[in-house]
Amino acid sequence: MIFLQDNVLLKRNLTHDDIKPRLLGPGHGAPAILASLWLEGSLEKFYPDYSRNAEGLRNLISTFSTTAGLPSHINAETPGAIHEGGELGYALAVSFGAVMDNPDLIVACVVGDGEAESGPTATSWHAIKYIDPAESGAVLPILHLNGFKISERTIFGCMDDRELISLFTGYGYQVRIVQDLNDIDTDLHRSMTWAVDEIHKIQQAARSGKPILKPRWPLLILRTPKGWTGPKKLHGKFIEGSFHSHQVPLPKAKKDKEELQALHEWLSSYGPNELFKENGDIIDEIKSIIPSEDSKKLGQRVEAYKAYAPPNLPDWRHFAIDKGSQESAMRVTGKLIDEVFQLNPHRVRLFSPDELESNKLSAALDRTGRNFQWDQFSNARGGRVIEVLSEHMCQGFLQGYTLTGRTGIFPSYESFLGIIHTMMVQYAKFIKMALETMWHRDVASINYIETSTWTRQEHNGFSHQNPSFIGAVLKLKPSAARVYLPPDANTFLTTLHHCLKSKNYINLMVGSKQPTPVYLTPEEAESHCRAGASIWRFCSTDNGLDPDVVLVGIGVEVMFEVITAAAILRKRCPELRVRVINVTDLMILENEGAHPHALTTEAFDNLFTYDKPIHFNYHGYATELQGLLSGRPRLDRVTINGYMEEGSTTTPFDMMLVNKTSRFHVAQAALRGAARRNESVRIRQQELYTELNHNIAETKKYIIENRKGKFACA
Amino acid sequence: MIFLQDNVLLKRNLTHDDIKPRLLGPGHGAPAILASLWLEGSLEKFYPDYSRNAEGLRNLISTFSTTAGLPSHINAETPGAIHEGGELGYALAVSFGAVMDNPDLIVACVVGDGEAESGPTATSWHAIKYIDPAESGAVLPILHLNGFKISERTIFGCMDDRELISLFTGYGYQVRIVQDLNDIDTDLHRSMTWAVDEIHKIQQAARSGKPILKPRWPLLILRTPKGWTGPKKLHGKFIEGSFHSHQVPLPKAKKDKEELQALHEWLSSYGPNELFKENGDIIDEIKSIIPSEDSKKLGQRVEAYKAYAPPNLPDWRHFAIDKGSQESAMRVTGKLIDEVFQLNPHRVRLFSPDELESNKLSAALDRTGRNFQWDQFSNARGGRVIEVLSEHMCQGFLQGYTLTGRTGIFPSYESFLGIIHTMMVQYAKFIKMALETMWHRDVASINYIETSTWTRQEHNGFSHQNPSFIGAVLKLKPSAARVYLPPDANTFLTTLHHCLKSKNYINLMVGSKQPTPVYLTPEEAESHCRAGASIWRFCSTDNGLDPDVVLVGIGVEVMFEVITAAAILRKRCPELRVRVINVTDLMILENEGAHPHALTTEAFDNLFTYDKPIHFNYHGYATELQGLLSGRPRLDRVTINGYMEEGSTTTPFDMMLVNKTSRFHVAQAALRGAARRNESVRIRQQELYTELNHNIAETKKYIIENRKGKFACA
Repeated sequence: MIFLQDNVLLKRNLTHDDIKPRLLGPGHGAPAILASLWLEGSLEKFYPDYSRNAEGLRNLISTFSTTAGLPSHINAETPGAIHEGGELGYALAVSFGAVMDNPDLIVACVVGDGEAESGPTATSWHAIKYIDPAESGAVLPILHLNGFKISERTIFGCMDDRELISLFTGYGYQVRIVQDLNDIDTDLHRSMTWAVDEIHKIQQAARSGKPILKPRWPLLILRTPKGWTGPKKLHGKFIEGSFHSHQVPLPKAKKDKEELQALHEWLSSYGPNELFKENGDIIDEIKSIIPSEDSKKLGQRVEAYKAYAPPNLPDWRHFAIDKGSQESAMRVTGKLIDEVFQLNPHRVRLFSPDELESNKLSAALDRTGRNFQWDQFSNARGGRVIEVLSEHMCQGFLQGYTLTGRTGIFPSYESFLGIIHTMMVQYAKFIKMALETMWHRDVASINYIETSTWTRQEHNGFSHQNPSFIGAVLKLKPSAARVYLPPDANTFLTTLHHCLKSKNYINLMVGSKQPTPVYLTPEEAESHCRAGASIWRFCSTDNGLDPDVVLVGIGVEVMFEVITAAAILRKRCPELRVRVINVTDLMILENEGAHPHALTTEAFDNLFTYDKPIHFNYHGYATELQGLLSGRPRLDRVTINGYMEEGSTTTPFDMMLVNKTSRFHVAQAALRGAARRNESVRIRQQELYTELNHNIAETKKYIIENRKGKFACA
Repeated sequence: MIFLQDNVLLKRNLTHDDIKPRLLGPGHGAPAILASLWLEGSLEKFYPDYSRNAEGLRNLISTFSTTAGLPSHINAETPGAIHEGGELGYALAVSFGAVMDNPDLIVACVVGDGEAESGPTATSWHAIKYIDPAESGAVLPILHLNGFKISERTIFGCMDDRELISLFTGYGYQVRIVQDLNDIDTDLHRSMTWAVDEIHKIQQAARSGKPILKPRWPLLILRTPKGWTGPKKLHGKFIEGSFHSHQVPLPKAKKDKEELQALHEWLSSYGPNELFKENGDIIDEIKSIIPSEDSKKLGQRVEAYKAYAPPNLPDWRHFAIDKGSQESAMRVTGKLIDEVFQLNPHRVRLFSPDELESNKLSAALDRTGRNFQWDQFSNARGGRVIEVLSEHMCQGFLQGYTLTGRTGIFPSYESFLGIIHTMMVQYAKFIKMALETMWHRDVASINYIETSTWTRQEHNGFSHQNPSFIGAVLKLKPSAARVYLPPDANTFLTTLHHCLKSKNYINLMVGSKQPTPVYLTPEEAESHCRAGASIWRFCSTDNGLDPDVVLVGIGVEVMFEVITAAAILRKRCPELRVRVINVTDLMILENEGAHPHALTTEAFDNLFTYDKPIHFNYHGYATELQGLLSGRPRLDRVTINGYMEEGSTTTPFDMMLVNKTSRFHVAQAALRGAARRNESVRIRQQELYTELNHNIAETKKYIIENRKGKFACA
């Protein structure tokens, strides 16, 4: 596949013309999988050009790793794939997510030397401890060591058998090393059979009500030389067993006679004449081991591409809170999730880094448990919740669970969700590409809940203040990205309900765990969220009619400041007509046509006025809004305050002050905007502006005085 | 510290008034460290209010975890700190970075149950394999298990001794478990003494020229009950030994009599009368164990705050390339780094995820090696390069190395640097806060080189195409963030030279590893980079005088497209006067005053013209430029194309086409901009515009035809 553009069955001696002009791969190892998929007919099913005959094989090989063919690593175009390995570290966690609640599924997960060095992999070996063998299937990890990365020895490749057995026994496995190079097929076959037997023993015990305490799941370690069965030496240098066999072992085969000859010998050594019939069909002995049922073929497992069923959802209004009261959005969200668990016993899970209690979502545990199997005292069985202090594992589980047709929720402290930023982006790329193929069908969206946000992490300090995950989602293709900042408990409930129904998106919901005012009835909340943004008449002048200035809040605490600023202005500068808007769906701001949710220019102007000053008080970084709004007309009337990377261990209100999102700052922004156009405001403004400055200064002074011990000096 | 605002030495019975109004911490465990720092006088040295007497102790305790005092976890304000633990997982890697090239330093690194579950920690245990005991110091890891996270049992807490010993023996350690609850002090003391002896044995062997093969470094596992020595039970529930002792074990002590009484008994059990003299001074027995030399005190280790010395740098012009030739910027950068290693034998290191060879930086290895100790065949000793396939370890090493006064470089594939996005942000927060204190002095900048960018990852496909780390740096405080996209080899050299000299920044340099044209002489390169942006006269009409339209390239390949577009326009639409600009320092675009590098409005207008159309062809996401430019006047004349999350396995030029950054798209943008203002262009434009559309369509057609096999259908 790497080399040939013609003569793929070696019917004649190779010539330089048979070699592709650019030799790429297989650092990422796709050829073995693609060959299997071609053999079993799964490629042909979805890509008719890759038919199971001589012509299809020629098409497959000659186009491999060119613009016309499949790439050098397994990606979303590959039938049966639920994970793209471009960014290393996540294969194990994704595999474990896939087998959860799939009791009959065994996923064999091959981890190479390189991936094994990554942190996410290093912790994911522990994932067996979150698998209940009564309800879930099993992962058979196969650590495949060839000793080298691109150009350096590897950690695991340099560990001896005793070290490896000790390490993985410590992780909780029973280990078997596969390394009989004289007959690796038999060794691997026997080892796989042993492993599957061990898996079945563990499962049968659990399913017959007599679970094994700390069951020792099997793990295989396969040791083979790098570039094994390839050319041994080239130009006097070792190729097999060295990093020189990484990617393309004979890079000059197109021009160099010695390399071409070595290639011919290498490929001939596989005996194509014995594997293929004269007409290019494969021999019957091979055919006989291909499963006859499509659903048992590697590339046609139903779980991998068409297992999605929407979750059963309760009416969220049962959990709604009376308008005018105070409520933690997370507390009611926990209750909604609890009910969703009840309605979907084996199709919805929650993954979280040990913050459920802290995030006030503990009602989610009212009728289920945490599925941690290694605690011999708790005897945890079942349980819809996994709390492990590895965001990488949470995200990997979520991906595997979602891509096999189920629905997951990932709540997190706001500042730590960025840990899996690139995983989320890779997942979004996978989904984008999967949906462009003919083989992949819908999956659930992945659903993030961010809480414990910077606005109320004043006590945990600067390291806990980071809303940058919003920006990461905003950079995705508009077809995938959804970001919501519901301003209260009822709007959060309807948003989560909506997200759990949705498909193929990356949903990010940002909300507060603290009790905050409930502004809207359930009906109002639903219609507000459906619109994505609306005028909040109750805190606007004259219901927001004919305003001098528009104040917009996006986010819980910053919206509260907007409402308070409007109240200050109503009292102290009544001639200033203020329209207050809340935006709950960030995507409505994008230019008309740039996102499915984007407001038309007309709707935008109706909401925000045609030309009046607009001040946004935003939960995230101002640059995100600037990016979203870019291209909208008349932007010189827009000002934005948002999180500006200022914080410490301080008071909640100081967080507003130092990031200039406080009520005083909002009121000043309104005055500044309006005064440019309105003489009567301009006159009043001086006085009030000065007073607001005074308020800011006094509050800061109070905080600084209380801090006198801190930055004293040496 | 958690509870008391008065009566801190328990001179009388506690009353509710002695209790703070808001009880916070110590989930993050700062009190133990702060108490030690107070005891040894390191707090007093930098914060005179925390003097080592009764008043200072009262100040420390009563303000702890309030806005007036130190926070509930160790952060950059803490004397001696080189790591803030808010985001978990990095303590080990940072510790190992700190001891590299510090042969006499031993860092004791305590890892708790929670941190131990994180991926970065799970792989960082392997870091001993990158420590050469001849040249570096040692880390003594102490895994402290109390069995619980916030509200759930932990993986490591539920492992029995055999599992733990097996696991860490497999990692390569010799393990000692410390768990004698009857006399933990003696047990820990003996264990520490043993560990330090073992460390010295390993070091002495290596330093006497007889290194031990695969030395077994010591590791301690300390097992104590959660909340040990705290209240045993409260309201009939177990506190000690359960998750209820997390953070605040007696949350209602301010109001509840039973809790207040329990608190009094608890605190009295430590016997303050026996530890303090009548005047509040500590007893001599305690004083006697405090080191007399300041530099041996925990909070005054020189390495932690004033060890920085600038690296010796060669004249980068020695490596410069002739203008007009083709060169890989990475190839020459490798040579410059090689020379920097020579000039700084123990003060500069490079950390990279096994991509040095692939990134064409291998000249960095010309006179040094990879410092991997576990390969018994290579006998690697010394070596300035660590290649480990864990970006988390690379970043942790870099942080520890830099914060102890040395200088590091972190090259990476562009798309995978985002893996450590949040670590970089946390580090930037640490530096920002450290420099606001009186105790911390300058450190080197941390230096990232991004190459193998999306523009030339056409062969590796969509998963390798992600420039989002630029945006992560842009969101930092302007005082810290520096982003450079040098357009050729010479500009890259001078940029790296500049970055290695700089202090306290996060430097991100983005460049190509492919041979690309060298546009500028060394002198021109230096003056271009000093300005951050300039008019490129050689590809502009009339040297860029009096243009109709301004074309701006930011990034290597997209700049090449701009230059080519200008050539097309010169030929096919000569009446259109084009000014071509390259921006190499992204920060010059920010609004005047918003960043130290930002151009004044006058300089901006001189460069980009007062009101002519400007088209940016940008390497990153358009929204990043929109954010930077926001606030600059007359933005409606600006259009931006950049990476728009489109890609696949394809050709380099197709990457330009699908992201609309190709020469054709740039030329069209120029025509669109100019035609709005210039009649003669408008007439010519129709024809050329159509032709460019034709070019785009034909090129795409060619690519699509070559792809016919791909998206055929089921």
